[in-house]
Amino acid sequence: MSLIAGIDVGGTKCLGVVLDAQREVTSEHDVLHQVRNPTPRADKLVDALEVLAGQLGDVQSLGVGVPGLITLDGVMRASPNIPGSVDVAVGPELSKRLGRQVNVDNDGNLAALAEWRYGAARGAKNMWMVTLGTGIGGGHVVNGVVQRGVNGFAGEIGHIVVNPDGPRCTCGRKGCWEVYASGRGLRMLAAGEAGESVIARARNGDADAVTVLEAWARWVAIGLSNLTNVSDPDVIVIGGGVSEAADIVMPIVQRWFVETLYSPEQRKHPDLRVAQLGEHAGAIGAALFGAMHA
Amino acid sequence: MSLIAGIDVGGTKCLGVVLDAQREVTSEHDVLHQVRNPTPRADKLVDALEVLAGQLGDVQSLGVGVPGLITLDGVMRASPNIPGSVDVAVGPELSKRLGRQVNVDNDGNLAALAEWRYGAARGAKNMWMVTLGTGIGGGHVVNGVVQRGVNGFAGEIGHIVVNPDGPRCTCGRKGCWEVYASGRGLRMLAAGEAGESVIARARNGDADAVTVLEAWARWVAIGLSNLTNVSDPDVIVIGGGVSEAADIVMPIVQRWFVETLYSPEQRKHPDLRVAQLGEHAGAIGAALFGAMHA
Repeated sequence: MSLIAGIDVGGTKCLGVVLDAQREVTSEHDVLHQVRNPTPRADKLVDALEVLAGQLGDVQSLGVGVPGLITLDGVMRASPNIPGSVDVAVGPELSKRLGRQVNVDNDGNLAALAEWRYGAARGAKNMWMVTLGTGIGGGHVVNGVVQRGVNGFAGEIGHIVVNPDGPRCTCGRKGCWEVYASGRGLRMLAAGEAGESVIARARNGDADAVTVLEAWARWVAIGLSNLTNVSDPDVIVIGGGVSEAADIVMPIVQRWFVETLYSPEQRKHPDLRVAQLGEHAGAIGAALFGAMHA
Repeated sequence: MSLIAGIDVGGTKCLGVVLDAQREVTSEHDVLHQVRNPTPRADKLVDALEVLAGQLGDVQSLGVGVPGLITLDGVMRASPNIPGSVDVAVGPELSKRLGRQVNVDNDGNLAALAEWRYGAARGAKNMWMVTLGTGIGGGHVVNGVVQRGVNGFAGEIGHIVVNPDGPRCTCGRKGCWEVYASGRGLRMLAAGEAGESVIARARNGDADAVTVLEAWARWVAIGLSNLTNVSDPDVIVIGGGVSEAADIVMPIVQRWFVETLYSPEQRKHPDLRVAQLGEHAGAIGAALFGAMHA
């Protein structure tokens, strides 16, 4: 059995997994071993990853996913959710300490890789993974290859501007897609009410809550249509907290997607699907990425 | 000498060129032979292309660029600028008539290929060509490969929505990028005055004209930043009518681009460049495309 390991660094926790490289991973149950530790400040991050790597035992390869802007050689340029993260050389430093090549990429890219290989987008030729969480993350896989761009910063789709005179984004600019279509966006459109609460009310047929959800779904769909105009994918996978309410959310998003799609009658529409690998997608993708480049 | 031919179908004329496959084409002067015929209605298009192919003489390969949505096997699904163009099998039909494989792609994709191979984006790893004409066309070349998407409809960047409650686009939706950032958009922002006239006044220091040009350049920059967020390119080439006023337009677009870029201080900025191959880009790209797949 050849063991491969992956670590997903989140805003609050680091999740490490060990997989059998020869075995398909279709759910958490196929993960051989997992470890969860709290995420420290950026200046302690490499220490924490070194410890976590040790807890994962003897493996053939290790990959790491980190949120934010990650260069092709694994340097974290900036990560809004990890305090103090400016130019932390996660990949180079961890490789040196562990005496092996450790590949590091953006967490959205790695979740996309996992969903393409083992999840909702198996067999897709050209897929986007869109994670609707607090913000919006993304990853683009074409013919099995994660599209990283020249700096490693491709897939920063939460910051596509969809209304340049809209509300201020955390990035400092105005009207980014994630201002409207993220979990935070849903809360804004609901005048401060939590997304879960709006969804629960909409489920019970509350007309105001349905109106808010429709408005939010339209913004989600506009972004998905924009990605379709750029890349013409066959599959778009929706992940993140919102995907847990997929039964009510996806039909509304789907309806708005057809409404907002360019030239809908001339094309096969991209298939919108719900993510399958849940919160493990990033760590599974990190393991796959580590194994690919080991 | 191995001769390759390309034809670019425009809204009003079809331009055919013959190139030496072994010789670089850095300007019109390197085109061995060229023919221009009027573009007919869609139902006569294949006839016209057959005649034009004959006028180009004996060549090793032929490629054709057509505006609009073109499938991977060369069927024109729809082209706003060519009346009657619904499901015209340009590639298959022309291949049959000429007894040879004729590859057909979207004109924006082929202009991008030409600018990457011989023009402003030589050596780029990841380039976007953005043509600011009446509307906005585009093409994306990654590691020398045109990104066509699963239907062949990638690069429809003029229809990225940048303001969903904005003015109506020719496509029927609202607030597409080309509503604002195309030649037509400049005219709209200038309350109906022609783009050339606005630019001429701005050149003479007219404050109102400068204000209009600034507003337009901001919209251009927002779209370029959106492409950067998706793909993280090293080069973006600006073509189309507007590129003829590059001396005044590009510095303003460049300033707004830095202003609108996500995380500008964390990254190497994409290089904005003016297209070099002018109106021949599409036909040169068609010739390259034909030769690649012959």
